[in-house]
Amino acid sequence: MSKTYAEIAAGKQREISVSEFFTKNRHLLGFDNPRRALLTTVKEAVDNSLDACEEARILPELWIEIKEVKENRYKVLVKDNGPGIVKIQIPKIFGKLLYGSKFHKLSATRGQQGIGISAAVMYSQLTTGKSVHITSKISKGKPAHYYELHFNSKANEPEIVKESEVEFDIDHGTMIELEIEAVFQKGKRSVDEYLEQTSIANPHATIHYANPLNEKMNYLAAVNKLPVEPKEIKPHPHGIELGMLISMLKETAMSSVTSFLQKEFSRVSSQVANKICEEAKISPKSRPSRIARQEAENLYNSIQKVKIMAPPTNCLSPIGEEALLKSLKRGVTAEFYATVTRNPSVYRGNPFLVEAGIAYGGSLEAEGILQIIRFANKVPLQYQQGACAIQKAVAETAWKNYGIQQSKGSLPRGPLMIVLHFCSVWVPFTSESKEAIASYDEIVKEMKLAIQECGRKLATFVRKRNRDKLSAKKKDMFKNYSLELASSLSEITGTNEKKIYAELITIAEKMFETGALEEKNGE
Amino acid sequence: MSKTYAEIAAGKQREISVSEFFTKNRHLLGFDNPRRALLTTVKEAVDNSLDACEEARILPELWIEIKEVKENRYKVLVKDNGPGIVKIQIPKIFGKLLYGSKFHKLSATRGQQGIGISAAVMYSQLTTGKSVHITSKISKGKPAHYYELHFNSKANEPEIVKESEVEFDIDHGTMIELEIEAVFQKGKRSVDEYLEQTSIANPHATIHYANPLNEKMNYLAAVNKLPVEPKEIKPHPHGIELGMLISMLKETAMSSVTSFLQKEFSRVSSQVANKICEEAKISPKSRPSRIARQEAENLYNSIQKVKIMAPPTNCLSPIGEEALLKSLKRGVTAEFYATVTRNPSVYRGNPFLVEAGIAYGGSLEAEGILQIIRFANKVPLQYQQGACAIQKAVAETAWKNYGIQQSKGSLPRGPLMIVLHFCSVWVPFTSESKEAIASYDEIVKEMKLAIQECGRKLATFVRKRNRDKLSAKKKDMFKNYSLELASSLSEITGTNEKKIYAELITIAEKMFETGALEEKNGE
Repeated sequence: MSKTYAEIAAGKQREISVSEFFTKNRHLLGFDNPRRALLTTVKEAVDNSLDACEEARILPELWIEIKEVKENRYKVLVKDNGPGIVKIQIPKIFGKLLYGSKFHKLSATRGQQGIGISAAVMYSQLTTGKSVHITSKISKGKPAHYYELHFNSKANEPEIVKESEVEFDIDHGTMIELEIEAVFQKGKRSVDEYLEQTSIANPHATIHYANPLNEKMNYLAAVNKLPVEPKEIKPHPHGIELGMLISMLKETAMSSVTSFLQKEFSRVSSQVANKICEEAKISPKSRPSRIARQEAENLYNSIQKVKIMAPPTNCLSPIGEEALLKSLKRGVTAEFYATVTRNPSVYRGNPFLVEAGIAYGGSLEAEGILQIIRFANKVPLQYQQGACAIQKAVAETAWKNYGIQQSKGSLPRGPLMIVLHFCSVWVPFTSESKEAIASYDEIVKEMKLAIQECGRKLATFVRKRNRDKLSAKKKDMFKNYSLELASSLSEITGTNEKKIYAELITIAEKMFETGALEEKNGE
Repeated sequence: MSKTYAEIAAGKQREISVSEFFTKNRHLLGFDNPRRALLTTVKEAVDNSLDACEEARILPELWIEIKEVKENRYKVLVKDNGPGIVKIQIPKIFGKLLYGSKFHKLSATRGQQGIGISAAVMYSQLTTGKSVHITSKISKGKPAHYYELHFNSKANEPEIVKESEVEFDIDHGTMIELEIEAVFQKGKRSVDEYLEQTSIANPHATIHYANPLNEKMNYLAAVNKLPVEPKEIKPHPHGIELGMLISMLKETAMSSVTSFLQKEFSRVSSQVANKICEEAKISPKSRPSRIARQEAENLYNSIQKVKIMAPPTNCLSPIGEEALLKSLKRGVTAEFYATVTRNPSVYRGNPFLVEAGIAYGGSLEAEGILQIIRFANKVPLQYQQGACAIQKAVAETAWKNYGIQQSKGSLPRGPLMIVLHFCSVWVPFTSESKEAIASYDEIVKEMKLAIQECGRKLATFVRKRNRDKLSAKKKDMFKNYSLELASSLSEITGTNEKKIYAELITIAEKMFETGALEEKNGE
């Protein structure tokens, strides 16, 4: 008997490994072209280094080196003074996608997916076939471990080519070296720009960087103190979904629903837990594992109804108004600066916080649209600005109120730079390449409020500046006029021309001082 | 001795399952809000049904039903007359992400990732906790199998709640029923719109649809013939990357490099294979598994240098100029239609083909920007138009050449609709939700050429229409003028006014006929 089509097709069904998936879709990870691939590689390594240092409460010092091997082929080295990685973890951290320590916890870190650095290793393998080299040391007394790794993209597993103990010139830290197909260019969206912006958002970090042109840049720490350590939190009940609640009920070690609610979530007191059970008509002593689907749904609905305190916000790690101001002043020469750190807010149960900074005038380009520098958990975002909530917030702000040019709904124009930092335990990126923040209403709203706070301060400055400019122009005009007048009066009166001119100027200056020659300046 | 930070951190490293990853990032899959979730769910099911029918060479007939269960909760049912699925495959196809038959083959199918329908099941589980129900039958003589499945999002595995043999009212086919959190709305980006557009791109499919308002729509097949079956192809050597080449060399069953090159790739004759080996200074008889990294790199470089025929294009399945024209006419009442199917082209070794259609005037909105209908392998794309290569191609076309209004670099304005179909063995989507095509240069170029071909045909029509309009306006003016003139002449000459008027009109019409009253119309 001949086979049906279904029977033939059955033989073709196969599991797809996550690394096969991302190899074919590497543009999703930020490896769509050789220039961006270089940036993404450096970025993933640096982000990991900074996270590791901060988690271990070490003031970060990083060394980054990019060298051209031949056309379209570069060697990238990133070294840090972080806590190091224990030997057994090294291969998986660098050679397996979806492996890491940050995905399952709620805390504001740069990495969150467990994809980044392994994706860079995967890309290196794909484009050069070379192994990556990792060296790591966890303390002075212990040996440094060295690995050469390949990435098996069929299996999503690391393959160890070589391992040994080696000398390492620092007490603790990690170094990665990889060779990739890449293109180096300076300017917008370059590695140079990324590191410059990284130093703005991380004034406590020291970064030594040598680019392929052998230009050396040293960003020394502007602050000698680590930012406050962000605390890990439990999920907030209002951010949880029914299906998640059901699996948490199944897996919990707690023996009653009330203790489950109190222990697995943040902001649930015994009183709140009892209220939720009461509302759901479930006995507080019920075993979580015995809760049926319909009961779980009742529980879920009553969680939505009961008032629960907003989630704790010590899980966030802002740059801080002062540090941001310092960084901004170090980074750009302007006439006016303002920064603000907003109070935390919540979207889908996730705490978040927005910081904004404005620089105006000075060396900033007077023509064209403003410059936006975007950060998410202190990481610069350089691609996909058009898709990002930050650009949306800037475009939707009414800049004319602050004396800045803007066509309706567009980005404002003028010698203006906006820095915006979005900080959250979970940044809703629009893709795995983590370059744009999704436009949730609550998020865009907070961003706008932060921009407005800075904008109001800016308005006072811009108005005064415009007034001064006008006033200077008038003074010039008056001087020219006085020259003419003095000449005429001299002829009529026979008095010395210069004397009359000096007299006229004195009168004028008095009048300027008292404001008698100033126009009133409206809003 | 106290533990170093690295030792503490080591305990926190964990594997992340792909389903955990996508649960937290479900916006990447098109489940970011309840309205879009409904669309994505229907879309994934319908795309699978159409793929299955076509692969089994069955003219597709689909039944789709959406019912409101309670506020924000809907039941979705999708049934097809496809080949069915063998019993043992059912749980994995619906309950495991990254599982499927299309990822590893090069052929133009709607699905490609092995994510879609399982993502819908995952979303159902997450938002309602209910099991999904699958019924499938592979031929008349065989029983229909029924499954109730849960999705284990920790393990990325299906959990079978119930299985049995049941009655099914069709000889072969598959039915999925799931309950999800959703919002139903008509209009733009709705399920209604999706199915309407699906019928435009799939004139051979019959679709019966009942929406939650119990409105019934039946799209009957406009063509009673299946599109030509797309053939599966081997990868083209010019599209392969070094890392991929290295793993293919390791895994091949071929015993020599020449046979490897001929069997694993398309368009490599023995002559071409020998030339590649010669260029790379590798003996044609070398064992593929013995090729070292450096030799593989030489092989890779010589592949780039040797001239190889463009990939075969029978792997593509265009709609066809005629069928597209028919669909377009059925779907929209306009005054002018044009369609074009371009010859295939190649990006990164992947064959692709662009089809375009234009409709103009008639019932199309005369004010505002044009309407764009986008398809990728016959699937309507409704979200993220701004990020899509198709919008880019439309905006970069010089529409003024065709008599259409356009501000520089923006989308054109007027009673215009563009349909564009991108067909490829691998569509480079900008995210897993498959709503926008990445802007590779080669792709945008082909799209523009297709639009231009239609545009030139349109230009002739638009010019004639404008001329006719102008001419009609002039006739009207002349009539009014004739009335006045007749009245004056009548007074002067005493001749009857109506007689004079009739005379004047006759003269005028003759002059219009001969074109004596027409202005010359330039290009």
